[in-house]
Amino acid sequence: MMERVLIVGTGLIGASVGLALRSAGFVGRIDGWDQSSLELAAAEQMGAIDGKAASREAALQIARVADVIVLAVPVLAIKDWMQALAPIVGAGQLITDVGSTKLEIRELAAKLYGGDGRAVFLPGHPMAGKESGGAMLAEAGLFDGAMWLFTPLSEKPTAAEKEWRGWIGCFGTRSLDMDAARHDEICAWVSHLPQMLSTALAALLEDTFADAAEISAIGGRALRETTRLGASPYSMWRDVAMTNTKPIADTLLALEQRLTHLRENLRTPELREEFELANQFRRRR
Amino acid sequence: MMERVLIVGTGLIGASVGLALRSAGFVGRIDGWDQSSLELAAAEQMGAIDGKAASREAALQIARVADVIVLAVPVLAIKDWMQALAPIVGAGQLITDVGSTKLEIRELAAKLYGGDGRAVFLPGHPMAGKESGGAMLAEAGLFDGAMWLFTPLSEKPTAAEKEWRGWIGCFGTRSLDMDAARHDEICAWVSHLPQMLSTALAALLEDTFADAAEISAIGGRALRETTRLGASPYSMWRDVAMTNTKPIADTLLALEQRLTHLRENLRTPELREEFELANQFRRRR
Repeated sequence: MMERVLIVGTGLIGASVGLALRSAGFVGRIDGWDQSSLELAAAEQMGAIDGKAASREAALQIARVADVIVLAVPVLAIKDWMQALAPIVGAGQLITDVGSTKLEIRELAAKLYGGDGRAVFLPGHPMAGKESGGAMLAEAGLFDGAMWLFTPLSEKPTAAEKEWRGWIGCFGTRSLDMDAARHDEICAWVSHLPQMLSTALAALLEDTFADAAEISAIGGRALRETTRLGASPYSMWRDVAMTNTKPIADTLLALEQRLTHLRENLRTPELREEFELANQFRRRR
Repeated sequence: MMERVLIVGTGLIGASVGLALRSAGFVGRIDGWDQSSLELAAAEQMGAIDGKAASREAALQIARVADVIVLAVPVLAIKDWMQALAPIVGAGQLITDVGSTKLEIRELAAKLYGGDGRAVFLPGHPMAGKESGGAMLAEAGLFDGAMWLFTPLSEKPTAAEKEWRGWIGCFGTRSLDMDAARHDEICAWVSHLPQMLSTALAALLEDTFADAAEISAIGGRALRETTRLGASPYSMWRDVAMTNTKPIADTLLALEQRLTHLRENLRTPELREEFELANQFRRRR
């Protein structure tokens, strides 16, 4: 039975996990740790955690006695925590993460976790978020209706893993188990490419117009939606770019070529083809 | 005093103009014409128009006695109507349009309209719409809070023009007068580029995945928003691409180069620069 949870990283996702657990009826203790004392204090004040670890070392001490440890920090920091936790956790304990890329995490987990006498690691990825982060934006309902992806190391879930998946189901999420490499490839298309695209467009507009009043006055929903993700923080996306470089580069190159094709056909019937394919894509959704 | 209005093209924008006029208290007669008898019937049924012209010829007859004629068809069709109407309209009458590009329309208007004994042409562009068209989606409130751009031929508005601008103000729109070339350049950035980008991304995904279930299952708000405009109809955008080719091609090329730069810097500190510029752009909005 899960009685004690430690959330490492109490930003938007971490604090929302705490709130969602409470809202789903979890009555055990939730401890939290964040490098930023502001984020940590905000998470406590919102009721996402019961207690704050006083330091990284204190968090590692709590980790020894936690049933479930949720790593809700950027991907490279997740990998650091996986290394730090491996020697001090053991059988019966579950470590899980919410990182945006999964292949490197899954490979590291296979080295450090699982097997006799060792803690289990369940790589996870809730497809939820906002363009701005921080505990202040956390919500108990953030995962309601969202997809929570897993790239498990073993096909036989332990009792702790089953229980954790059960809680996540109570958040109103759907879930899907995938191969980690496939996960990273699909996420490059549906998440990382839209992000990079939006960042590139917003950066280009900033360089071209700076604070030209016309852009604000004339830009409507089309501009707002296609640049919304431009507000996303580098701190998180650096790690995504670092740990999924090849798939992201492949999708970017494909889009560059597609835009070139479209540009060269603005006055030819090929443009109709592009619109018809795009219409078809949207009709499926 | 405006007593009789003819709306040519009773799709989403044309029918919404009719509904907005009624909702703002216009008590005169509104006639409509559309190539599609379905669109025309829908507009009448919704109360956007009082009467349907029986044919294009009948619409031209009504045009002779209308105070204001609103051309709400794609840009190339607007130019056709401008040619057809010029010989049969005269002093005191106002012709206006809602086309997405303005330079070619303004240049044609300068040839055909204005001056002694001739009707006045006021090129206009409401920045409102939906990703799907059609009278059935028309709303009296479509222009509420939107920007209505004008690229007038003369700085001295006639009485009819003042009255028409007054009605548009009653729709809850803001308005801005601009140079037509500048209009087309800015719209290439804030409207046409987001459209082409969204079309290219949706077409690429359709080609790459067709109906792969994973894309629907995993794709979230990021994918939905960046491909939403992919549903837009070719029929309208063909004319935009045809009449604003150079500005659109310029913005597409700039974006292609920006994406290449980003792709080549996924693992360098240049990526931080891009995110910071994008963050700055969003903070201004």
